[in-house]
Amino acid sequence: MDKITVGPMPYMSVMPTLLVGANVKGKPNYMTAAWATTACMAPPMVCVAINHARYTAKGIEENNTFSLNVPSAKLAVETDHCGLVSGAQEDKSKVFRSFYGKLKTAPMAEECPVNMECTVFMAVDCGSHTLYIGEIAEIHLDRACATDGKPDITKINPIIYAQSAYFSVGKEVDKAFSVGKKYKKK
Amino acid sequence: MDKITVGPMPYMSVMPTLLVGANVKGKPNYMTAAWATTACMAPPMVCVAINHARYTAKGIEENNTFSLNVPSAKLAVETDHCGLVSGAQEDKSKVFRSFYGKLKTAPMAEECPVNMECTVFMAVDCGSHTLYIGEIAEIHLDRACATDGKPDITKINPIIYAQSAYFSVGKEVDKAFSVGKKYKKK
Repeated sequence: MDKITVGPMPYMSVMPTLLVGANVKGKPNYMTAAWATTACMAPPMVCVAINHARYTAKGIEENNTFSLNVPSAKLAVETDHCGLVSGAQEDKSKVFRSFYGKLKTAPMAEECPVNMECTVFMAVDCGSHTLYIGEIAEIHLDRACATDGKPDITKINPIIYAQSAYFSVGKEVDKAFSVGKKYKKK
Repeated sequence: MDKITVGPMPYMSVMPTLLVGANVKGKPNYMTAAWATTACMAPPMVCVAINHARYTAKGIEENNTFSLNVPSAKLAVETDHCGLVSGAQEDKSKVFRSFYGKLKTAPMAEECPVNMECTVFMAVDCGSHTLYIGEIAEIHLDRACATDGKPDITKINPIIYAQSAYFSVGKEVDKAFSVGKKYKKK
């Protein structure tokens, strides 16, 4: 074993690149986020960590709703732009075409192949960031990105975020709940 | 726009494949998890969603500590095995060599290039799953996987989890906080 300690720091091996949608003062706004994951199976929930100072946080607090949108690799420029520029300085309502679903107040980006509209289940103040845990009200999916009625990663071509860079998804290497059957006890 | 609705379901575009380490009744146990992300920058925190019924949950509740370990692709068999078999049925303490850091009660898997030891900041009952939010006490990194003293994804070769399969990380396509500068206002 040859390990070094690098101190406590915000680290995760791979993360999804997403756009968080929220209405701020009645206008759609999108911010780039990667600190997000699934939080619960039943009911289906997601969570996303957002800095207190962010313009988007105001919109989430205002409506108690938000959306998570999955951009495909071809939307890298628009996606990164939403991480560079704050809605407080620039109107980002036209970066994507917005549509609304069941919740009416969670704007979703039409160009993104997957859109999840959520209501806030809990907002946990962790320090610099609030972790918003949201219950999914509905998932909208581009018909062209569906296989057997479900989101298909090979059609969606999502963007991975890691160490301040964007990566493509590589090859499928194994099926989960399967390759482990080869394990031989030590 | 040609969208379909697929109903609320636990979906995330890409996820990290991790091993959650916890001492259960004084013995190291590891479970595979993918529903995890960074939760806060200051202080550095992570979160991971774990089903109430899981053996690992008992260990986290017992000690108020856990670890997140990042397996490299070559550990796919061992990693998947820890998702197939419960510690309640089989002793998984020998699947990896365990070591302890600052917290003394959060076992970490030596073979995994990155190990984060955490204390529970909050446990949020979301329904079927508890979302454990943990403050990172220390991060241990294989010296061979460091570049300028930081974890390097190209050396770690982590496993992506999506739609019940494992994927490799593809090419770096763009730098974040950079490619968005090409954006032209609509």
